[in-house]
Amino acid sequence: MSFFTTHEELLHQALKAIAERTYWSAYPESPSPKVWGEAAAPAGKAAFEALLGNDFPLPATGATVAPEQSPFGIELNVRYPRADPDTLVATAAAALPGWRDAGVDTRTGVGLEILDRLKARVFELANAVHATTGQPFVMAFQAGGPHALDRALEAIAYAYAEMTRQVPAATWDKKGEVFSKKFTVVPRGVALVIGCNTFPTWNSWPGLFASLVTGNPVIVKPHPRAVLPLAITVQVAREVLADAGLNPDVVQLAVDTADAPIASDLAVRPEVKIIDFTGSTAYGRWLEDNARQAQVYTEKAGVNTVIIDSVADFAGMCRNLGFSLTLYSGQMCTTPQNLLIPAGGIETDTGHKPFEEVVGGIAGAVAALTADPAKAVELTGAIVNPGVLDRIDGARSLGEVVLDSNTLAHPTYPGAVVRTPMIVEAKHGYQQECFGPVAFAIATESTDDSIAIFRKVVGEHGAITAAVYSTSEDVLAAVEEAALEVGVHLSENLFGNVFVNQSAAFSDFHASGANPAANASLTDGAYVAGRFRIVQSRRPA
Amino acid sequence: MSFFTTHEELLHQALKAIAERTYWSAYPESPSPKVWGEAAAPAGKAAFEALLGNDFPLPATGATVAPEQSPFGIELNVRYPRADPDTLVATAAAALPGWRDAGVDTRTGVGLEILDRLKARVFELANAVHATTGQPFVMAFQAGGPHALDRALEAIAYAYAEMTRQVPAATWDKKGEVFSKKFTVVPRGVALVIGCNTFPTWNSWPGLFASLVTGNPVIVKPHPRAVLPLAITVQVAREVLADAGLNPDVVQLAVDTADAPIASDLAVRPEVKIIDFTGSTAYGRWLEDNARQAQVYTEKAGVNTVIIDSVADFAGMCRNLGFSLTLYSGQMCTTPQNLLIPAGGIETDTGHKPFEEVVGGIAGAVAALTADPAKAVELTGAIVNPGVLDRIDGARSLGEVVLDSNTLAHPTYPGAVVRTPMIVEAKHGYQQECFGPVAFAIATESTDDSIAIFRKVVGEHGAITAAVYSTSEDVLAAVEEAALEVGVHLSENLFGNVFVNQSAAFSDFHASGANPAANASLTDGAYVAGRFRIVQSRRPA
Repeated sequence: MSFFTTHEELLHQALKAIAERTYWSAYPESPSPKVWGEAAAPAGKAAFEALLGNDFPLPATGATVAPEQSPFGIELNVRYPRADPDTLVATAAAALPGWRDAGVDTRTGVGLEILDRLKARVFELANAVHATTGQPFVMAFQAGGPHALDRALEAIAYAYAEMTRQVPAATWDKKGEVFSKKFTVVPRGVALVIGCNTFPTWNSWPGLFASLVTGNPVIVKPHPRAVLPLAITVQVAREVLADAGLNPDVVQLAVDTADAPIASDLAVRPEVKIIDFTGSTAYGRWLEDNARQAQVYTEKAGVNTVIIDSVADFAGMCRNLGFSLTLYSGQMCTTPQNLLIPAGGIETDTGHKPFEEVVGGIAGAVAALTADPAKAVELTGAIVNPGVLDRIDGARSLGEVVLDSNTLAHPTYPGAVVRTPMIVEAKHGYQQECFGPVAFAIATESTDDSIAIFRKVVGEHGAITAAVYSTSEDVLAAVEEAALEVGVHLSENLFGNVFVNQSAAFSDFHASGANPAANASLTDGAYVAGRFRIVQSRRPA
Repeated sequence: MSFFTTHEELLHQALKAIAERTYWSAYPESPSPKVWGEAAAPAGKAAFEALLGNDFPLPATGATVAPEQSPFGIELNVRYPRADPDTLVATAAAALPGWRDAGVDTRTGVGLEILDRLKARVFELANAVHATTGQPFVMAFQAGGPHALDRALEAIAYAYAEMTRQVPAATWDKKGEVFSKKFTVVPRGVALVIGCNTFPTWNSWPGLFASLVTGNPVIVKPHPRAVLPLAITVQVAREVLADAGLNPDVVQLAVDTADAPIASDLAVRPEVKIIDFTGSTAYGRWLEDNARQAQVYTEKAGVNTVIIDSVADFAGMCRNLGFSLTLYSGQMCTTPQNLLIPAGGIETDTGHKPFEEVVGGIAGAVAALTADPAKAVELTGAIVNPGVLDRIDGARSLGEVVLDSNTLAHPTYPGAVVRTPMIVEAKHGYQQECFGPVAFAIATESTDDSIAIFRKVVGEHGAITAAVYSTSEDVLAAVEEAALEVGVHLSENLFGNVFVNQSAAFSDFHASGANPAANASLTDGAYVAGRFRIVQSRRPA
């Protein structure tokens, strides 16, 4: 049975889900032994630990590098083959014709089989994501495993739908002139995926699998601090390709170091026709400006904004926002940064609250979640890199510190760098992204003024997420209109267990491509349609 | 009954056709009175003539311009409002929110109704296309009318499918957390369509209607020598918008002159987010390089190539290629330019033919088609602009002239500039596009050498079309493989009434976007998916 046949039913469920966009998930998000069996977690941990201090099992070219630094201080020392751009590009280009000629179903089947085998290694991946990103373990499991698998499956479903929206062959008969026509999906060229430090699988897999199944050989260039999750991915992909009788070089790993980066070298190669990047605005813009030979999909940074107008459940809002600010110490591209609150305060279910009490309520929720270090670190995780620490220090000068960032000791990892979120009542400096555990409470003249600031800041600098709290349908409608205009997805009145920084695959779009924070969305038709072309031939029948 | 309801059945037929890609057409291509009624042709001609020498009926801003010069010498002198870029962009931007909020079905209905009313003015349009482009009348009717309408309908169908691939709203229920979600199609911004001299409707309508129904107000900037067909288009669009109770400024006409062009000014405005352009490679590249704020769709130029290996119907091949070279005196972006023929000749149904006889056979077919001036001009039409004449002169120096270009007198239009096709046995200079009635016969070492030249020239310079003649399945397979690699659509063994320079809407893709001749295809998913974004909101249900 072909891989395609094996997974065809799952594919059709996913195709249905992307159209209906109700709740659906293909991979269980709970790490519970009830779901995965008692042996899964310890076996995954053991598999992860067996990789540490060793040469990673991929074809070696001689020299190796071991660039990773765990935010928890876990000793990794996994050695990867040092990548040579010339060889990578030439090898990928040589693999293209065979991968193209494998056809839509074979390529899609390979993609789906890779996901299935990644699922089988989900606890090993969770440990790798946890260790390299600083994410708390449960989050590393969920976001790095099932949620990333869902997003990858979603990308495959979109790509399959796009490739098969017309027949592969047709007979054309115009008044007796009869022609046989073939419509072949052809790849754009070599695809490059540039991973990020914080979400190596979740942010890289959609582009990787979208490029892959549309026929493009893929070079995977992880962030040098978060290589292992993508090295496992490439290893699995190559195994599946080989098992399918195809060239494993269709997927290659390109590891570099902070001192000798190779992304820019790869990005401007004429053979490279697709680039997926998640990371800083500066580098995303560099790619957009310089990799002109390629279709470039970027998720950069933005100023995620919450407009607080009035609220029917003040405690629920504080809990909900407090959790969003605390999760992974605010190191998500979706974490709220700017809290726009009228200086005159707001109406709530427990009466009028002055501005200070609104900010204090949110700060109190954060403080409660981070009071016990042992519990706190299971939400905050660790600080991903030193740049984040610098921003915490810098934020203190932007206004009055309502809640300061604390250093916590991690009960398991003595070397972990843990910081709790801070909230600054800012008068200036909040128009730029300040990535990390920093939120700004901004006193506005009114909700109208909040909306005006939202339009201006998000319009100019972009945002991945936005939220509003209001009991007024008129205000909600006005914010919805503003969100359409600046092109940002909006969450309204979140009190429970859905958080503004979380998007659900198959229902929520992640980023929109309609504001400066990202030029593409995970995942829609535009995200996949440009990754291939259709080339036709016709002859008399 | 809404416009959408009125035309919904047609839309669903078109949606079926773009998936099945068998023969289908929505608009009859014959100009016969049996189809359109006895009155249609004379009424259309009278309507066209009534426009000449007058102010075109569109809102005026004071000054007017009359930039058109008919290749037939027809006195046009239609005066159009002189366009002011500041006003056009501001007016378009102001029309955006209302057009966006009209919604998918309303916008699609408006697009379909515009096509219906253009159909009703098809003879008037045919006269306008004929007079401004130099196309012979029947071709101006077909390519400028029904075929252009088919391509526009195809673009609307693709856009509608893309906008509706997910539900507009959904209820999401994850273990009791229930959310209402809305998914809104939002436009990218203001769209600019830059028309060409040769096919003002056929090449402009797909982009115009794709941008329009996806919510973008459109500024239509015709080529200054071919304004009238697009002025009629804009007039009809504005009438339909007004009849639907919508702002007619959603579609605006921007007329300029060769001396004071405004396309570049418009193209780099920050509000302009989509540009469709058909024309020269130089200006297409300028747009791609400079209009960085916009999604730019270009159809530029290429080196259309025919590989002649062996043939089962030599006379049929010569007739077919002779017609392709003669039609509109080679002024189609799809006209073959390079004829690659082994120097040692080819095998045919009438025995071995030396190189000279193969070229002579094709030249003879052209000569036969152009022997009688009265019949010839109904195929060649007139030369669209002086640049083409310069290229005819220049081509004489590139090798031995096998068939020279002749000047013909047009029996109806004394001022017409008519030239017949020339064939040059070229040793060099054929790697560039030579737009106009010039074909190069190139003696190659072998068919393998022909394929190598095809790969190199089309790979580097692009092509819109390619063709091959061979009786060998191996050769056909090798050329198909080469065509996939350089990304060009291939026609094989055309002997009858299907010509390499013609593509049929709903079945053939026009251009591929996979080689330098064009960065997009008429029409596929990639052509429409980037013209809008989806912005979502969610709230507890």
